Order: sequence, then C-alpha cells, then structure tokens
Amino acid sequence: MIDAQKYPVLSKVTYPADVRKLDINDLKGLCKDIREFLVDTISETGGHFGGGLGTVEITVALHRVFNTPDDLIVWDTGHQAYPHKILTGRKELLHTIRQYGGISGFLKRNESEYDAFGAGHASTSISAALGMAEASKKLGIKRNVVAVIGDGAMTGGMAYEAMNNAGFRKSDLIVVLNDNNMSISSNVWQISNYFTEMIAHPDYNKFKGYVWDLTGKLDHFGDRLRRIAVRLESGIKSIVTPGMLFEALGFRYFGPVNGHNIHHLVKIFEQVKGLRGPILIHATTQKGKGYKPAEDDAQRLHASTPFDKVTGKALKAPGGKPSYTSIFGKALVELVNENKKIVGITGAMPDGTGLNYLQEAFPDNYIDVGIAEEHAVTFAAGMATQGIIPVVAVYSTFLQRAFDQILHDVSLQHLHVVFVLDRAGLVGADGPTHHGTFDLSYLRVVPYMVLMAPQDEQELRNMLYTAVQHRGGPVAIRYPRGSAVGVPLAPGFEALPIGKGAIIKKGKDIAFLAVGIMVNYAVEAAELLESEGVSAEVVNMRFIKPLDGELLQDIAARFEKIVLLEESSIIGGFSSAVTEYFADNGLCAKLLRIGLPDSYVDHGTQEELHAELKIDVEGIKEKVSAFLNK
Amino acid sequence: MIDAQKYPVLSKVTYPADVRKLDINDLKGLCKDIREFLVDTISETGGHFGGGLGTVEITVALHRVFNTPDDLIVWDTGHQAYPHKILTGRKELLHTIRQYGGISGFLKRNESEYDAFGAGHASTSISAALGMAEASKKLGIKRNVVAVIGDGAMTGGMAYEAMNNAGFRKSDLIVVLNDNNMSISSNVWQISNYFTEMIAHPDYNKFKGYVWDLTGKLDHFGDRLRRIAVRLESGIKSIVTPGMLFEALGFRYFGPVNGHNIHHLVKIFEQVKGLRGPILIHATTQKGKGYKPAEDDAQRLHASTPFDKVTGKALKAPGGKPSYTSIFGKALVELVNENKKIVGITGAMPDGTGLNYLQEAFPDNYIDVGIAEEHAVTFAAGMATQGIIPVVAVYSTFLQRAFDQILHDVSLQHLHVVFVLDRAGLVGADGPTHHGTFDLSYLRVVPYMVLMAPQDEQELRNMLYTAVQHRGGPVAIRYPRGSAVGVPLAPGFEALPIGKGAIIKKGKDIAFLAVGIMVNYAVEAAELLESEGVSAEVVNMRFIKPLDGELLQDIAARFEKIVLLEESSIIGGFSSAVTEYFADNGLCAKLLRIGLPDSYVDHGTQEELHAELKIDVEGIKEKVSAFLNK
Repeated sequence: MIDAQKYPVLSKVTYPADVRKLDINDLKGLCKDIREFLVDTISETGGHFGGGLGTVEITVALHRVFNTPDDLIVWDTGHQAYPHKILTGRKELLHTIRQYGGISGFLKRNESEYDAFGAGHASTSISAALGMAEASKKLGIKRNVVAVIGDGAMTGGMAYEAMNNAGFRKSDLIVVLNDNNMSISSNVWQISNYFTEMIAHPDYNKFKGYVWDLTGKLDHFGDRLRRIAVRLESGIKSIVTPGMLFEALGFRYFGPVNGHNIHHLVKIFEQVKGLRGPILIHATTQKGKGYKPAEDDAQRLHASTPFDKVTGKALKAPGGKPSYTSIFGKALVELVNENKKIVGITGAMPDGTGLNYLQEAFPDNYIDVGIAEEHAVTFAAGMATQGIIPVVAVYSTFLQRAFDQILHDVSLQHLHVVFVLDRAGLVGADGPTHHGTFDLSYLRVVPYMVLMAPQDEQELRNMLYTAVQHRGGPVAIRYPRGSAVGVPLAPGFEALPIGKGAIIKKGKDIAFLAVGIMVNYAVEAAELLESEGVSAEVVNMRFIKPLDGELLQDIAARFEKIVLLEESSIIGGFSSAVTEYFADNGLCAKLLRIGLPDSYVDHGTQEELHAELKIDVEGIKEKVSAFLNK
Repeated sequence: MIDAQKYPVLSKVTYPADVRKLDINDLKGLCKDIREFLVDTISETGGHFGGGLGTVEITVALHRVFNTPDDLIVWDTGHQAYPHKILTGRKELLHTIRQYGGISGFLKRNESEYDAFGAGHASTSISAALGMAEASKKLGIKRNVVAVIGDGAMTGGMAYEAMNNAGFRKSDLIVVLNDNNMSISSNVWQISNYFTEMIAHPDYNKFKGYVWDLTGKLDHFGDRLRRIAVRLESGIKSIVTPGMLFEALGFRYFGPVNGHNIHHLVKIFEQVKGLRGPILIHATTQKGKGYKPAEDDAQRLHASTPFDKVTGKALKAPGGKPSYTSIFGKALVELVNENKKIVGITGAMPDGTGLNYLQEAFPDNYIDVGIAEEHAVTFAAGMATQGIIPVVAVYSTFLQRAFDQILHDVSLQHLHVVFVLDRAGLVGADGPTHHGTFDLSYLRVVPYMVLMAPQDEQELRNMLYTAVQHRGGPVAIRYPRGSAVGVPLAPGFEALPIGKGAIIKKGKDIAFLAVGIMVNYAVEAAELLESEGVSAEVVNMRFIKPLDGELLQDIAARFEKIVLLEESSIIGGFSSAVTEYFADNGLCAKLLRIGLPDSYVDHGTQEELHAELKIDVEGIKEKVSAFLNK
C-alpha cells in the first residue's frame, strides 16, 4: 500500500471511479501526488518518464469527466500513459514497470480493461478510436471515444488519414492533441513550427471584438455581408490559432488550452462531452513538467535507467562496452567524411539511431524527416535516383511501416538505398511492440535485397562500408539493441565479399550456421559441447541474402547434422532460407532450426528473454545435445 | 508514323523539345490531337483512360515550360501519364500499352529518361520529388522538380508526411494537384468536400477589395492594424479558397486554376518556375475530358478493355464465368444479411474489390476510408475491439502498405479482422507495381494469422464463411484477378476445418501439394503425366498457415518426391512453409518448389506470364518430368 501521508490524495484513489468521487478541489492535490509518485518510483526502476509527467493533468481530467472504461480512451504510443496506469488499478505495480513479469511500459489490452487499445508504434490512436466510435454507433451504444496523441505522432501519415476520414464521416470523436513541442527529439516538422508561432496570439481576441463591432455598424450591407463576416471571423481565427489544419480536415478546434491547468481541462472536456462530430482539443504541455532535471533535459529523460531523484543523474555508470548504435553513428561520420554523397536519414530518432554523431559532424548530410517512415524510404529512393547514397537509420520494428515503399519504390527500381536497422531481435524492456523480430523474414522476400547481420562491432563497420560501396540495389544491415561485443576496432574499413560467409571454428561432429549475435552464442555453445567431447564447427554466415551456396555445399558434404541459429522469427528468415536452399539443391541433412517463436515475446531484459526462450548459450547447448542424441 | 492529316500538330512532336519549339498558338491544337490520338488508340487496345484525358493540358504545359528531362516530373500513380508517354518519344508505341512486350501502363524508369520515378501505388510522388529536390540541392544542380498528384492520392498519409517535411525544410518543390474530384470512385474524403465547397467562391474577390478599402480608411489605427489586416486578408483567402490545408503545411498555394485552359496553365507554371520554397498549384480537371462516354461514366472508363469509339461500349461481351471479385462481393452480402455485425471496408475501391454489392445492399455495413490502407487496417482493429467483424477488402499489392498495422494493431492484440486479398499473384496488364506476389510470404510471418487460398469460387465462399466465423485473430484469404473456374455454386455456406487440406486425387508416384489456383494447374499437369504413365496425387492444401501437419506426415510417408506449387514468391511462402515443416519434423523427401521467381515480372496477360515463367500447365509438367528423371 502506498504511503497515505506522503500521497494524501492518491492513496484514496485506485480506480477512475475514485477520481470521480473526489471533491473538485482535491484534483490539484491528486496531480501533485501522481507526479511525486512517478518521480519516486521511476527514479528507482527506470522507464519512460518525461511523457508521463507531461500528461498528469490531462489524464486526471479525462478520467474525471469521462466514464471509463465504458467511455474509451486510446493513448497513442503509450509513453504518455504512466499516470493512466496509476489511476487504473496499477499504482501498486508501477515499480514493476518494464521488468520481467511486471507491467508493460506501454498500453496493453490484456493488462487492463482501461487500456482500450495497445500501442508502441506512433500515430495509430485516431484510426483505432475512429473504429471504436463507428463500431459503437453501429451497435447502438452511446459513449465517448477519446484519442490522446502527441505532436510528434501527428507527423505520421496515419494520423492524417484517420482525421480526414473522421472529418468526412462526421464521426463523434474527441482527439486530444498533447502538444509538448518535442517530438522525442528536436522539432522537425512544419506543423510543430506552426503551433509554436500561432499559439495564444495576443492580437486575436482584441481584433475579434473590433471586427464584430465593425460588422455591427455596417448593417446596411445586408445579410450577405453578415454571412461573410462570420466566415471572416473563422478566417481570422484560423490564421491566429493553430486550428487551420484541423478545421480543413473537418474537425472543430478548441484551444490552445494550458495542459497543466486541471480545472481548465475539466471544464473543456465537460463542454465537448456532449457535442457531435469530430472535435480536436489542443492542449499545450511540458515534457518532464514538475521535475526540474526532466524539464531541463527532456531528451535524455524521455526513457531512462534508474537515476538519482535529486540530481536526475543516472545511478549506474555506463558500461565499458560501446553500443552498436554509437559504433554505427561514428562509422557513418567517417564514411561521410570520405564521400559527401552519403546522407543519413532518420525519422525523429537521431539519438536512438546514432545519427546524432552525423548531425553534429556534418549537418548538411543529416536529414530528419519526422516520425514518417513511409516518407523516409521513398524520399531516400528519390535521392538515390540522383546519385546520392541514402542511409536510412531506423529501428527494425518501425521499418515495418515502410515495407511497401521498400518493395515498390526502392527494390522494383533497383535503387541503392542502405537500411540500417537498430534494435533488431529482442529489445528488452520495451517489449512486443518494439521487438525487431520480423526483419529477416520481410526483408528477405524483397528482390535484389542484400541482407546482412554483423557478429560484432568490427564487422558492423565493415558491413556498413560494404553497403555504401554496393551499387546494385537495396542493402540492409541489422543488429541488436545495446552493448556490442567489445572487440578492438581496426582503423579504416574493409569491404566484405557480397554473399560470402566465414568458417570461424572448424569441427567434425556438427556444424552451427549462425547470423548476427547468434554467432557468438554458437561459439560459446560449441565450447560447452567441446567439453563433452563433441566437435562443433561454427560458421558466421554474415549474409542472409544472398546465401553463400558454396559454403552450404561444403557444410552439407561434411556434416549430417546442422544447427541454424538466428535471433529473428523462425518463419521465413535465415533458417528458412537455408532450408529452401537445401531443398532446391537436393542436399540432405538433419537441420535444427533455432530462432524466435511464431508468437509475441513479452518484456524483460534481453538475457531474461533469451533464457526463457532457451536461446541463451545454455539453452542452445541443451537443444543441440538433444538433437545429437536423436 | 502517325497520320499528319489527322493529327496536324502531334505529328510534328516526338519529344518535349518539340513542344517547346511550337508556336504558343499551336498548343491548343496539340491538346486536341493528343486527346483524339488517345481515344483512337485506347479504344482499340484498352487501358487506363479517363485519367489521361484529364491531364492533357497539364502535361503539355509542363513539358512546354519545364526543361525536361533535366527538370524532373514525378507523376503519382501513373494512370494520368498517358499524354506524358505520347510526348516523350512513345507515341508510336502507345498501341502496345499494357500488352506483353509493349510499353508499361505506368511510369517506368528504365522505359524512358523522362520517367523520373516509377509508380503504381498511390501517394508516393511528393516524397520522391522532395528527395530529388534535396539531392539536386546537395549536388549543386539547379533544376525544377515537379510532382503531379491526384486528389485521390492526396488522401494517402504519405502525401501528408512529405508535404509536412517539405514545408519544414522550405524545399524548392512544385506540387501540381490534379483535382478531378473523383478519387477513382466516389468522393470519400473530407479534403475533397472541402475543395468542392470552396472553389471559386464568387464573394472572395469582391470582399477582398472591400477589406482593402476599409483598412485604407482606418489609417489612424496605425501599423499594427495594418499588419493584422494583411493577416486578415490571408485569413479570408484561406477560408474562401482551398489553400488552408496546404498553407498550414508550409506551401504557397496558387489556384484553383482551370486545368483545361492550356494558356492559363503555361502562364502559372512560368510564374512559379523561378520561385523558391514549396509551391502547390491546384488545377481542377475533368476525368475523361473531351470524350463524352468517359465524361459520363468516369468510373467505368477509369480502366477499360477495348471499346467502341463512338458509343464507349466494350467491344468484347463479358465472358461466361463470373469473376472472383463478384463471387466474393455477393457472398459477403449473403453473410451480412445473416449477421449485421459484419462490416466491409475498402480503400476507395468498391468496384475493384466487389464491395459495391455490399454498398448497394447494406450501405450501413459498408465503409470506404479513401486511399488509406494503413488507416483502414487499424480502423478495422478498433472496430474489432468492440465485437464488430471487419472484412477489409483490398488488392494484395496494396495491403503491403499496412504490414506494420497487421502486426502491431491486429495480430499482437489477437483481434479478429478478416483480410480479403483480390489480385493476388500475377495480375496481368498492370504489371510489376500491381502483381500481388509477396502476400503468402509477408502474411505467413504474422503470428496467429490464418492464411488460405481457394481452389475455386465455391471454396472462396466457404473460406469467407470460415473466416467470418473464426474468432481467434486475423484471417486472410487471397485469390487471383479475373475469372473464377466456373464451377456451380452450392446454396449456403460450409465451414472448413482450420488448417486442414484435402486430397483431391490419389496417386502413387509423385504428389502435388498446391494452394489456390495452382491446385487446378496441378490437376491438369497430373492428367498430362498420367498419359505418360506417371501416377500423381494432387492435394489441395487450402491453408498456408496453419499447415496440415497430419496430411504432410501422410504424404511424406507415401512419397519420395513431392511437388510444391504456389502462385507467389518462391521465398518465404507456402513451399517454404512445407520445407520448414519437413526440416523441423525430420521428414525426408525430395521437394520441387514451383512458384514465382525472386524478381519482378513484367506486364502481359496472366496466361502469357505463366507461360514465360513456365508455371502454366505445360511448364509445370515439364519441370516435374525433369524432377522425376533426376
């Protein structure tokens, strides 16, 4: 039970019904408690942080005014939903957030009936909420449906598709735009500029009064002018408030409203609750609100490890090994330094992808297109037609958004675009919405694609070099989240022969064919087997596409039992490619395919998840032992 | 050579340079010639038609004013680009359009240096053009880059992502909005309504003058008011012209301009040519312009078979066999009639998908979301959370756009959404941008997905019934473009057991395992083999996922050689699934995998393409004979 003295109001609240029972004057205290509870808890556990501090008042006001869970709230992306979790039966579990077996860092339908729709990828909330609104209408259920979306997610094309559709259908839908003007990283979009310029223009109200006076005096111009004057007034409104875009899309616009004034928010939600048609409420908020270190450094405290509550400084010293992210980011700077035709492209993730190094070193060769993966890829294709070498740096899971563009705009036209996929495989605490577990499968089906995975950071450097040199169509490199292996780095780069693997340990009894970090697991598993008298060969295949056929023929000739290892879906990826090759070439061998299951894996550390799935070294060794004894 | 008497101006024009040499007064005659040439040619060959008639003047004006191919024109989708093909060296080839070995019906980079970017899917042009503009800037090349996009494609989220990004970057880019107010089918979007209401408002110019007079007289209010007045004027402009949306996105808006007035178009293109920053020119056009039957029935003549030039009526009587499209459309009406919780969803393709039957019979159960596949799928997911059964009817190739949404919003949440994929496999004349050749691969990797392909129209009906009944997550059915098999239809529906195939012909020497239309090819190939003394078993697997393991065990026990047949990419699809199953279960057999190659297939009739790829009956039989003799 949480401390009633420390959190006098929050201790009385477990579910939204309790929020609705509170005296209106207690709401401010509730917000204060939530904020402190968040800082107290997350400073010890780590987690997405700034987003939640920014939405405390919006969350309280929504659950106060709307009758959740009968009324439906759809949170976009989910970073912003920690206060929502606190108010919906999960405050006592907040300390378990993002931990193995604990509650999720994102929304999750099977975690709570208050989580109307799950989300980890951006820009989905308006579509989902519109679906719910139309379904409710169809079923004759009267309820409010609210989508809460950040300004960053508003750059995603889906949000526009959904608003356009809602405007056309005149659906009963409330969208709350949580405008913290941050978009995870810096502002990279026009609409964001637009908000900044237009918010709270001081001339607006004065001038509005003046115009009404004027049209009153000009009575003799008749009804027609009066009608025009009404339009004129909305015209002015649209130009001095940020509503223009949304009104063009058929929404009624309210705002901007101070997203940290709980009483204003309650009032405006009460006002719009009964209204028909699509409504947008524009609330301005501050990420990290109320916690000084987060206010000052919103970018860093977007998602954090445990930290000191007073200073905001991380408790653990950063580990000794560099991250794959930074290795990539620095290698790209070296390559751009040699060839100014190389350009790095990110979808609002310079820090997450390591492109921040390029941004600093060569700002002219760095492009942030906003959260807009579809556009990013076709934009890159357009650049490639002119001889630029675009390097699209993106999380594996987010590139799923651009699958069609990779096929239709890049591969079909045989354009040289380099895709660098960070966070491939199991990402850890972010869980199933963020695991990059399908990339080997969906990229392998792309014609002309060259698809590689490095064993370590040295190989990542060489693969990046190889990818940039290769002028024959799309190339993709995928590597995991987190620390690299820690091998020493050679100066300069070395081109790898396309489609060639390497035997890194000779053996006699069984062969491991692996890609990416699984090569290292294979080496360790082979060592364990060695101690039991089994001689295992280990091959770093490097390329998932094209496969090294010569090497496969050699392995098939020498081994009866072969183990295939990948940290990606067991369906359609690397092991599937080898299996196809064996079938097509009439090769016969017993194959043991080890990869990620055909289902979703929950959150936890990468080590915990590998152990659970028995794809850690020990698990692999056990599976292989059983395979040998079959 | 084309007839100089019939086409006096066009006969003098082969390339855009010739357009630029013409006397300005000849441009109208050129437009007239192009239009007649189009009607004369396409009435004999068939093809996308209405779009091209609508863009004659825009095309002539663009090539007159801009220095193509050094200046770059990016056509969205490509339906609209027939006049562009005529003016860029391909008029003598127009009669070969969409035919095997002939020119493509869409843009194609390796067909002409004037085709700056290929396109068959909608909404890509602004992204690609922006990439080209930024690349040119980076390379120090001064040129104009123009994207031409229809109002339909403007509903796609990518277009918004790209405009937002262009506005932020203040890139030098010209977008021509070809607003024919049709969006392939009826208007389904808010922006389209918006255009219609606002265009050419008669009050605008009068009132503008009045306001200027007024602010002139109100001098004593000082500079500040004058500044506000400037804003006021743009405020009015934004409210009585359709520029609002585009100006919010950072574009300078010009228009609306009559897209059939060649002299106005030339003038406006000349005006904007030297301007900096993103510019949008809004041209209103009429689909089918200048050809009465196409003007009257733009929907039908969007893409047509050969037709009588005078009446516009199709020359060939429709074949005796129903299309899969109509079988699906009618079956869905029957199912909705029984269960009103079923809803059909389309992305602006009611006729193409067969949802037009539902639209007519049960308009309340029919939803058109516009060209917006991402939104369509997440919208469906939102509906499914409330117990609605959404049936998303879409072309196989276009569903690639929503790959991420299928994973993240539908499958991860285990929601029951039915995907019905028309145009799966090779689609014929539309060619590589439209072939639906990746679906078995990208849908198979989706956890919980039930994936089926019917052998004929009777099975399609039962599969649809099965899909709607199944309450355990996503279900997909894929079938080809065109005529069904012609089998008699049983009344009512029968549920199929999930993941169960059927042996449809017993044999001894070899087994065919096939899905979809390939089952019928297998039956015929088996008959050919039979005549040569080979006894072939034929199995209709029905389900690509889950596979019928029991049946596979049985087949593996009885046959040494097994042929796997699918009309989808050979990578990662059905045959790959069977291969994986054999490996995972230690089954041994020689497998011959027959499917579509890991590359792109050009256009032609389905029969021509099957023959070329040797996946027609004769080709299959030959491959199998060789396999038997190995």
